[in-house]
Amino acid sequence: MADLFERLVKNYGPLGQHRERAYGYFAFPKLEGEIGSRMKFRGNDVIVWSLNNYLGLANHPEVRKADADAAAQFGLATPMGARMMSGNTNFHEQLEKELAAFEGKEDACLLNYGYQGMVSIIDVLCSRHDVIVYDAESHACIIDGVRLHPGHRYVFKHNDLEDFEKQMQRATALIEKQGTGGILVITEGVFGMAGDQGKLKEIADLKDKYDFRLLVDDAHGFGTLGKTGAGAGEEQGCQDAIDLYFSTFAKSMASIGAFVAGDKAIIDYIRWNIRSQIFAKSLPMPLTIGNLKRLDLLRTTPALKDKLWENALKLQRGLKEKGFDIGKTDSPVTPVYMKGGVEEATAMVMDLRENYGVFASVVVYPVIPKGHIIYRLIPTAVHTDEDIEETLQAFSETKAKLDAGGYKVEAIPDMAEEVSAKRFDYFKSKPKNK
Amino acid sequence: MADLFERLVKNYGPLGQHRERAYGYFAFPKLEGEIGSRMKFRGNDVIVWSLNNYLGLANHPEVRKADADAAAQFGLATPMGARMMSGNTNFHEQLEKELAAFEGKEDACLLNYGYQGMVSIIDVLCSRHDVIVYDAESHACIIDGVRLHPGHRYVFKHNDLEDFEKQMQRATALIEKQGTGGILVITEGVFGMAGDQGKLKEIADLKDKYDFRLLVDDAHGFGTLGKTGAGAGEEQGCQDAIDLYFSTFAKSMASIGAFVAGDKAIIDYIRWNIRSQIFAKSLPMPLTIGNLKRLDLLRTTPALKDKLWENALKLQRGLKEKGFDIGKTDSPVTPVYMKGGVEEATAMVMDLRENYGVFASVVVYPVIPKGHIIYRLIPTAVHTDEDIEETLQAFSETKAKLDAGGYKVEAIPDMAEEVSAKRFDYFKSKPKNK
Repeated sequence: MADLFERLVKNYGPLGQHRERAYGYFAFPKLEGEIGSRMKFRGNDVIVWSLNNYLGLANHPEVRKADADAAAQFGLATPMGARMMSGNTNFHEQLEKELAAFEGKEDACLLNYGYQGMVSIIDVLCSRHDVIVYDAESHACIIDGVRLHPGHRYVFKHNDLEDFEKQMQRATALIEKQGTGGILVITEGVFGMAGDQGKLKEIADLKDKYDFRLLVDDAHGFGTLGKTGAGAGEEQGCQDAIDLYFSTFAKSMASIGAFVAGDKAIIDYIRWNIRSQIFAKSLPMPLTIGNLKRLDLLRTTPALKDKLWENALKLQRGLKEKGFDIGKTDSPVTPVYMKGGVEEATAMVMDLRENYGVFASVVVYPVIPKGHIIYRLIPTAVHTDEDIEETLQAFSETKAKLDAGGYKVEAIPDMAEEVSAKRFDYFKSKPKNK
Repeated sequence: MADLFERLVKNYGPLGQHRERAYGYFAFPKLEGEIGSRMKFRGNDVIVWSLNNYLGLANHPEVRKADADAAAQFGLATPMGARMMSGNTNFHEQLEKELAAFEGKEDACLLNYGYQGMVSIIDVLCSRHDVIVYDAESHACIIDGVRLHPGHRYVFKHNDLEDFEKQMQRATALIEKQGTGGILVITEGVFGMAGDQGKLKEIADLKDKYDFRLLVDDAHGFGTLGKTGAGAGEEQGCQDAIDLYFSTFAKSMASIGAFVAGDKAIIDYIRWNIRSQIFAKSLPMPLTIGNLKRLDLLRTTPALKDKLWENALKLQRGLKEKGFDIGKTDSPVTPVYMKGGVEEATAMVMDLRENYGVFASVVVYPVIPKGHIIYRLIPTAVHTDEDIEETLQAFSETKAKLDAGGYKVEAIPDMAEEVSAKRFDYFKSKPKNK
């Protein structure tokens, strides 16, 4: 009989296999100092492109004051208990009311965390006979929600309307055969890796042709898209067709927590039945009050979104002018696609960080296919022209080195090993063998 | 074809069916003022028995100062991003180190929320061929984790060792037949509703007979049980046999977040593979620093746990002396079992709150069988002798009225309707009909 743990620790997985050299550098890095476009990494100044602080609210003086005042007044413990049992307050209700109004919906349900919020929304909406149709590149929290679904689910190729219709036809046929059940379509406002918007308008238009309810995760669109910042639905002119609009506060709002907005009746159904909220603690008061302040600034200071887009377009234009492939982003999320091996990518990222002072997240094999490298840059309202210019220059120079073979294996310094050696000493001891 | 939402809002569920009269009173009540044994409910002073603030840390002056100082220094936004990407700090690592040491384990992995933490721990540990054996009264987050498991799961009757062995035999036979797979046993240190400890020692002793790994959710035992407060494993003398010790910070720690502790190898496997942590934002810095302070007080101020138990035993002895059935709790959680209808329970709880100034949570049908009423009292270190005596008196008097038929239907005031009428006006409008 196999020991459960023994088998697991024989293969630490796609990311964990590199843990000894990755910890503290490529994974679990520490960015120190005030959140902004320039922070400290291993004691050195770096220009940071890895934080979803789109509007710069994380370190906005009014936000900092609201956070500090609320924590001083209430502490971080209150309210104790789940919202339904003993964790409700006027502030929680006020935030729900303001979020609903901002999104043009009748009501909103506040969620204590985005991930478990989304998982449980999907769970609470769908029974065995219902069918979920969802985009193939949906975020992990959507996938986990879909995995909880006891009925059928059909995945459509990312943003592919032809395949979407094909899956809708399968779903519709199944439900007609069953004689019962409804269809939930799930997609995103902006896909966080490639930065392309979900085809919400096109999907919404298909409501004339198919019967379904539409749930949209707009984590990256909330605050960054649409005239008022209400997100991808507003941007694409189809907000009313989104039956349930979801966003986390972890991006533009620079906080934690999340919400889902829609018609009063369905929001109330969710409120009274959603497991991760009924059985877990309410969002702490200072975060709730801090989110009210963030939402207020997001609504009343359009200059923040304007500046974000000015920076995003400057960065994206600059990269394109220098010949970089940034794919088909139509959001501030800026991927940069390159070709090269894992070892080359490792050396390039270290060169970029250590010698050019540019901190950007990178994804390589086995997360993406072998031979590909994807940087993912997140411009924000607090980046400066200088940040952008220095970064463009650094990308040009390191890309030239990459193309010239300058990052071939022998060039890798063992800096990361040094960083993580202390922490990973214990891997030299074998896991408990039963 | 049925509309997904239309069907849902025809039945708002076991709790939601009472929403119009329950909101703001029986569900989603607002407890106002500083967290303590006396707070305000609807403007009136009440003795509060509904908060898991076991050690009184929520409003401890040192905790309040740590929370306020950390929020002033860092704001509530930092660190931005998932722990693995851009959300790691020295404080997060320090908290992991201290929690591991406190629990007598090699390592610990910090979790941004207890609910999604537990769901993903179960998910990350088990593959298709593994088998989960779990207690029937496990918390919702355990159940959701088990629901994600693609393989077999066997549930054993709550704390029933005979049935546990029966399920272990089934699990073992299945795995032997498969020729692969391991067994994960999941139970709790203290069951939150009835207050009885899980039979950890007895289960641990069966490791000689069966091959399995043991995961324990000790949400209510952490800080309240064991010589040092390390929890139910310490209390029962079997901490070493617990392979993964889990607790939320939402109870004794009066905070949010959670952790799982165990051998270094398996904790690192979890750290590098756990979905709800890799794909969701890190625990905010002030909460992490605030948790370090709470843990410090929990370890260094045994008087808090002593006072908690003094109060818990005083309350439990008092209830028993007055003839109340408090079941078989062996933790501070104090259930009080009565018999009566839903309407009677409603009237009794309102009498208790409005006329006796005692705020306690109550559970009735359909959450538990018809005709039963369960109060659930949570004593804490900050309750006073006066709080306990007044409460015992109030329980005696209201129970006498209940037994004398004094809360029969005609006696129900419509206070709750008045509270919730404003909010629930919108239920008069029909849900969207497609």
